[in-house]
Amino acid sequence: MAQHPVQPTTPARVAPAPAAVFDWIDRRTELRRRAGLTRHLRPRPADEPVLDLAGNDYLGLVRHPRVVRAATEAVARWGGGATGSRLVTGTTQLHQELEEELAAFCGFEAALVFSSGYTANLAALTALTGPGTLIVFDAYNHASLVDGCRLSRAKVTQVPHREPGAVRTALTEHGGGRALVVTDSVFSVDGDAAPLTELAPACRAHGAALLVDDAHGLGVVGDGGSGALSAADLAGSPDVVATVTLSKSLGSQGGAVLGPRRVIRHLTETARTFIFDTGLAPASVGAALGALRLLREEPERAARAREVARRLSTGLAATGLDASVPDAAVVSVRAPSPEAAVAWARACREAGVAVGCFRPPSTPDRHSRLRLTARGDLTDNQIEQAVAVVARCAPPSDTDD
Amino acid sequence: MAQHPVQPTTPARVAPAPAAVFDWIDRRTELRRRAGLTRHLRPRPADEPVLDLAGNDYLGLVRHPRVVRAATEAVARWGGGATGSRLVTGTTQLHQELEEELAAFCGFEAALVFSSGYTANLAALTALTGPGTLIVFDAYNHASLVDGCRLSRAKVTQVPHREPGAVRTALTEHGGGRALVVTDSVFSVDGDAAPLTELAPACRAHGAALLVDDAHGLGVVGDGGSGALSAADLAGSPDVVATVTLSKSLGSQGGAVLGPRRVIRHLTETARTFIFDTGLAPASVGAALGALRLLREEPERAARAREVARRLSTGLAATGLDASVPDAAVVSVRAPSPEAAVAWARACREAGVAVGCFRPPSTPDRHSRLRLTARGDLTDNQIEQAVAVVARCAPPSDTDD
Ligand SMILES: Cc1ncc(COP(=O)(O)O)c(C=O)c1O
Ligand SMILES: Cc1ncc(COP(=O)(O)O)c(C=O)c1O
Repeated sequence: MAQHPVQPTTPARVAPAPAAVFDWIDRRTELRRRAGLTRHLRPRPADEPVLDLAGNDYLGLVRHPRVVRAATEAVARWGGGATGSRLVTGTTQLHQELEEELAAFCGFEAALVFSSGYTANLAALTALTGPGTLIVFDAYNHASLVDGCRLSRAKVTQVPHREPGAVRTALTEHGGGRALVVTDSVFSVDGDAAPLTELAPACRAHGAALLVDDAHGLGVVGDGGSGALSAADLAGSPDVVATVTLSKSLGSQGGAVLGPRRVIRHLTETARTFIFDTGLAPASVGAALGALRLLREEPERAARAREVARRLSTGLAATGLDASVPDAAVVSVRAPSPEAAVAWARACREAGVAVGCFRPPSTPDRHSRLRLTARGDLTDNQIEQAVAVVARCAPPSDTDD
Repeated sequence: MAQHPVQPTTPARVAPAPAAVFDWIDRRTELRRRAGLTRHLRPRPADEPVLDLAGNDYLGLVRHPRVVRAATEAVARWGGGATGSRLVTGTTQLHQELEEELAAFCGFEAALVFSSGYTANLAALTALTGPGTLIVFDAYNHASLVDGCRLSRAKVTQVPHREPGAVRTALTEHGGGRALVVTDSVFSVDGDAAPLTELAPACRAHGAALLVDDAHGLGVVGDGGSGALSAADLAGSPDVVATVTLSKSLGSQGGAVLGPRRVIRHLTETARTFIFDTGLAPASVGAALGALRLLREEPERAARAREVARRLSTGLAATGLDASVPDAAVVSVRAPSPEAAVAWARACREAGVAVGCFRPPSTPDRHSRLRLTARGDLTDNQIEQAVAVVARCAPPSDTDD
């Protein structure tokens, strides 16, 4: 109903009506639909009669009675929330306990707990870099690390996935100024491991620091699940910082940065996602602490998760599927297209097995995949069932891709 | 012990030893110390014999039996964590309940829950803007909104605090392209309110969208605590989006974006801090839902929090202190210097009253302050005690500043 402008020579813009302000969103939605990339939330019931290989509960602890009890006790003692940012009222003695035990478990001097692994990564990247720093960044790193780079104002050089040679070249070209090499320890989509034992000497040759996101390593990799840094004999090094999440093998929520005491202190005083964010809820602190203590008592849980992953992978490969070779608890299987991945995952669910379905932009390359997580509490029968169902539901064109 | 380079004409840099890689951090720490800006974590015990006016538990609900029970039941039913990102396994039916009830309570079509208010803000800013968008940004907005701007790649025009005229000018100069006006509803440090009823018409005159962070409004402002957007008759408008946190008046953890259904859908499908972050822990979803239901039954809690704030402010002003005039539940008092603010807060704590101490960079201007939160459950005696203690502990030079 816009009127003609009185003077048609001036390109008068009529402000869109309030109801039209977000019309551009509908156009984007339609483009995603046409590309087969529509996503839906599927609220799940508490008791679903499916075998869950989609979540990241690698040790099967999320409903373990001890984890539940620890969370419950924390709520009873501290209440529903932390009440403030960590530097004001949001640090309870329970936060401190978790930080001390987590640092000790992973072999680091100190730890700092965040409300998520995402905000822990933003903190580490921004607080450890500045406008003069070079960040050398694996192309397949997690989205939260990518966002951390964007927030950091540092110079970012992206290097091809798992190529220590390219890291060395980038550091050499930088000429010795401050630098931070950043990598996932276990990459989230395919479950492959970073070449930490090659990256560390490359960093040292150039005086660079090494930041490793061990979200998928903690609880799974290393002695008793002590993580990828401990496995590579890098935990506790004065030039190495790790981030972890409490939301995967520890069955809770939250994240942490682990490193030399002075690094942790620096984060406490300067990291924006630490200072301006409410502390992690006591229930989540308690749950993570409960899971960590359990894992300390039952260290064999970590090896079992890796074993389950290997068996899933070899089982799937034996049926002719393009399954990744797992370095931790994640196995992925290539799908021919986003639409095929969605249909495949749906068929698996209907056959009683829930698997993850990853499509662009959640995959680092253009390929869609199923993603299976090897929960350490799966029985041999369940592993067989999972392999059989995934194979049976596979799209016919899969092997041509 | 570096050796002399063979050819001293090339400026050969010797890589620092691993132990020296983070030496720069010690220099920063020292600079902060000299500026009186050192920060310490103070792990608090569960039962501290102080009157707490430092946390953001505006309605005094964090340990309310119903909130505790709701969190406990959620843990028992769903476990310690959400197990995955919201689009994979991290959406439980409890998340959906909270989203529906929160949207209805605040008067919006739909809501999307995040693991924190911080990540909700990052999501709203990045998903609602693009390289061509103009963001018009109040200079005192919360740090998470600032980070959202940095991530957004949009053009950002910062305008002076609470100046609708400057917003209009910025929108006019932009000439009618896509624009988003961003403001806190209640500013976190001083507790003053944004001029929403002037900002909304300014937006409409230019076809801009309005994004309001109602972290300090929800539960306190508006009928029964339904928030600042509802109070300004803007809730549910097709061109208005709100963000809230579950970590303040709702005594839990987490955040949410509220808005038209198509906006929420768009965030679900595109916001990186939604897609790549583990879902909010069931305990926190439960606690927030418990608090929300309680508030619906006892709507007078909101008005009481505002009343307590007004009485704190007038009481403090009557003793000659420079106290802010509260539009919600936050009252701040100017301190002459960062060091004086720290000493003042410490003295208050020793006298049995915990108050927040805000120094740069946590204050939007150069001034340090005490920050008092008016919990709705404070008794008249406690209000008097708080005023008396803060006044008694005030630094002598305060009035000269
Ligand atoms: C490698 C990696 N880093 C960080 C995160 C973020 O952790 P959180 O979900 O606890 O925020 C994830 C997954 O969510 C991840 O896979
Ligand atoms: C205005 C404002 N927005 C957002 C946030 C972040 O919310 P959360 O602590 O839940 O991450 C806060 C405080 O923490 C805040 O004061």
